[in-house]
Amino acid sequence: MSIELEEVSHAVRETQYAVRGPIVARAAELERQGKRIIYCNIGNPQSLGQRPLTFVRQVLALSEYPELLEGPAAATFPEDARAAARLVLRESAHGLGAYTESKGYRFVRQAVADFVHERDGIPADADHVFLTDGASKGVQSVLRLLVDGPKDGVMIPIPQYPLYSASITLLGGAQVPYTLDEAKEWSLSRDSLETAYAEAVKSGIRVRAIVVINPGNPTGAVLDEKNVEMVLDFAKARGLSVLADEVYQENVYRSGARFVSFAGVLVRRGITDVSLFSFHSVSKGFLGECGHRGGYFECRNVPGDVMAQIEKLQSVALCANSAGQIVIWIMVRPPRAGEPSFALYDRERRDILESLRRRAATLEKGLNAVRGMHSNSIAGAMYAFPRVDLPPGVTDSAYCLALLEETGICVVPGSGFGQLPGTFHLRTTILPPPDEIETVVRRIAEFHAAYLKAKSSPARV
Amino acid sequence: MSIELEEVSHAVRETQYAVRGPIVARAAELERQGKRIIYCNIGNPQSLGQRPLTFVRQVLALSEYPELLEGPAAATFPEDARAAARLVLRESAHGLGAYTESKGYRFVRQAVADFVHERDGIPADADHVFLTDGASKGVQSVLRLLVDGPKDGVMIPIPQYPLYSASITLLGGAQVPYTLDEAKEWSLSRDSLETAYAEAVKSGIRVRAIVVINPGNPTGAVLDEKNVEMVLDFAKARGLSVLADEVYQENVYRSGARFVSFAGVLVRRGITDVSLFSFHSVSKGFLGECGHRGGYFECRNVPGDVMAQIEKLQSVALCANSAGQIVIWIMVRPPRAGEPSFALYDRERRDILESLRRRAATLEKGLNAVRGMHSNSIAGAMYAFPRVDLPPGVTDSAYCLALLEETGICVVPGSGFGQLPGTFHLRTTILPPPDEIETVVRRIAEFHAAYLKAKSSPARV
Repeated sequence: MSIELEEVSHAVRETQYAVRGPIVARAAELERQGKRIIYCNIGNPQSLGQRPLTFVRQVLALSEYPELLEGPAAATFPEDARAAARLVLRESAHGLGAYTESKGYRFVRQAVADFVHERDGIPADADHVFLTDGASKGVQSVLRLLVDGPKDGVMIPIPQYPLYSASITLLGGAQVPYTLDEAKEWSLSRDSLETAYAEAVKSGIRVRAIVVINPGNPTGAVLDEKNVEMVLDFAKARGLSVLADEVYQENVYRSGARFVSFAGVLVRRGITDVSLFSFHSVSKGFLGECGHRGGYFECRNVPGDVMAQIEKLQSVALCANSAGQIVIWIMVRPPRAGEPSFALYDRERRDILESLRRRAATLEKGLNAVRGMHSNSIAGAMYAFPRVDLPPGVTDSAYCLALLEETGICVVPGSGFGQLPGTFHLRTTILPPPDEIETVVRRIAEFHAAYLKAKSSPARV
Repeated sequence: MSIELEEVSHAVRETQYAVRGPIVARAAELERQGKRIIYCNIGNPQSLGQRPLTFVRQVLALSEYPELLEGPAAATFPEDARAAARLVLRESAHGLGAYTESKGYRFVRQAVADFVHERDGIPADADHVFLTDGASKGVQSVLRLLVDGPKDGVMIPIPQYPLYSASITLLGGAQVPYTLDEAKEWSLSRDSLETAYAEAVKSGIRVRAIVVINPGNPTGAVLDEKNVEMVLDFAKARGLSVLADEVYQENVYRSGARFVSFAGVLVRRGITDVSLFSFHSVSKGFLGECGHRGGYFECRNVPGDVMAQIEKLQSVALCANSAGQIVIWIMVRPPRAGEPSFALYDRERRDILESLRRRAATLEKGLNAVRGMHSNSIAGAMYAFPRVDLPPGVTDSAYCLALLEETGICVVPGSGFGQLPGTFHLRTTILPPPDEIETVVRRIAEFHAAYLKAKSSPARV
């Protein structure tokens, strides 16, 4: 007998991942039928016209095909791109075609450590850094370490990025949801953490770790130093490890807000008894190099024998892809003032971030102008997660599907991220190009008015 | 409290992966101390001097940095490399920086289907192909699908490539080992399969699938059509899925031997009730592009709803890296006769394969000339797995460690792959360059003689 659905492992069947779920599948179907779709379901900047940074691609091209360094083409590359490629070839020892160390290239891990040192003013150790195929794979490895059975719980925010719920389900562990306060800009309170923790313990769950996404996906909230301190104090009091998803650390738009890293606060407060795993990625920020699947995580207060277990885990699938590791390297060690590529790199970087900031503002303002829709401020990350007031009997899934069919705009229903019962949301990215984001806002507004009108006058249905 | 080793999940702690295990760690340590190490522990061709194929790297460079297609450098690339890169940019729609479909680029999956069609003369469907970060990640996904709990068993050969044992352990499933017959060139018999199956069933195991590695890792054996038929008949009789690890399909050296795919035999025999997953990779063959982590698997007799579960599983970590997908594309759709790059590609291909063939022969002959060592013929793949006669009280781990310390040659003990009790082996790759493989053989012979002499004259220890 061939395998049947009923024989597929329960964990797989129970896993949900709405960011690429049924509504997205329907969008692809409509696209094949000729409908123009605006994909606002996923933070995939280059699919919506964002251009890669020149220096990144120059170094990749030269590293892939070192013959370019010698031939007549060499002169078309700036000197620092050529120097960077030579460094890649020397430090990798065998070029991009060989397996790297299981933890990733040593020189890239050292550059990550230097980056953390410079960013936070704290010591950092290359041996505590693991390079991964995107941050997602790193998150899955750390969760694999922590979850041993159905009674092992991991605290995740509600709303959350469904990588977490999906991975915990796949590992057969328990999700321990804590609620972000929508009425207070999706803020995080000790009360909410303690309530969630107590409830889990009461159900016999052994809580192992807490996940914090900062800047927040899908919420767009940015934590301040006090928030981060509070989470670390809580983790310390409850003996939890902390998974800090910091992939949007470059994406802070609200003036006055700034990114505060968990590692920085941990070290400044001298906390030595909370294990911290911080994740970063080349997919977000201003690089948007999603396809290259480059990520890393840095461990703090994790003993050597536990890191050896992580290394073993990484080694089973050998190593992260080499090109993605190189993109990580450029992200943490970009051209500097005085170097030939600095001006261009810096301009490209600022243009992208400034454009994202403007689009976030346009979206936030536009959504809040829709009667029956409310968006908290998009302080950071790449998303809006507005509350949508819906008439009885309608779900956000039905609403998002209708929005797609009607307007071609593909967003993800709030149910895919988690929300308080009786509330409905949608997640849309801020990523459509500047002219298109206006269209998105206008069409959502028109659709919403028409949809509500139709639903509230049964005679017309 | 920081996390402690005792808190790491049992599955992780119990996982073993000798190919990058303690002996390899010791080798790295010795290397840092200045000792010259010859790494024969892993099939990593480019780390031992094999050069990437020119066309592969040209297309990657152009796809990473499309500006090369327009500028003065364009003329330094052959026309078909430029055409291939243009196709990549067109078909990917957004270049290598965007997430691909969860299953991988459609045009690459179509090329895989065409390749299978051409190789085996059977119909093939792009929708049944999944692109992965190396074959390893694909294997882990399929096992994730099949293993639901500790009573779910997967049959694996002994000796096997430890990806399988490690992944089954990580998933909390049961390994069901079946024995290859060393006395008959590591051949595979129905008796051995039935014995293993019956024993597992007796222990309450629900056997779900059988893994076959062909050409064999670490054995070097190549299955003939009858063998493949036998495995499929067995799988059919017992209701098992088949995982066919065919990553060494280009690596067949023995004259008269040829690669026979499971898919071809399945279709030719009209078997419609055995689910088959066949794995392939850019890391082996003659490309040896390990660092790029490109792989695929093709499903046969797997219903649509089950494939949808696989797609969901893939989507949680979004997609395989884009560059690796492009290398897969070139592997399955290389330059053809009449195209500008054909002559060079073909010469590079033949040179590498011919050199591997010669090195396999040198190694086999050399090992068999050592008294107390016996290697079956290296008909395919990239390894020798000789039996080593050791004096009482000595393990192959101790032997391999001593070999490393004494000679700098890093091999993996047979215990990492599984072997019959009381027998000892080592696995070495055939990959050191031609001049060095002679050195490897000579040093192993010298070491072996000295080691045995020392161990058998206790007075000298």
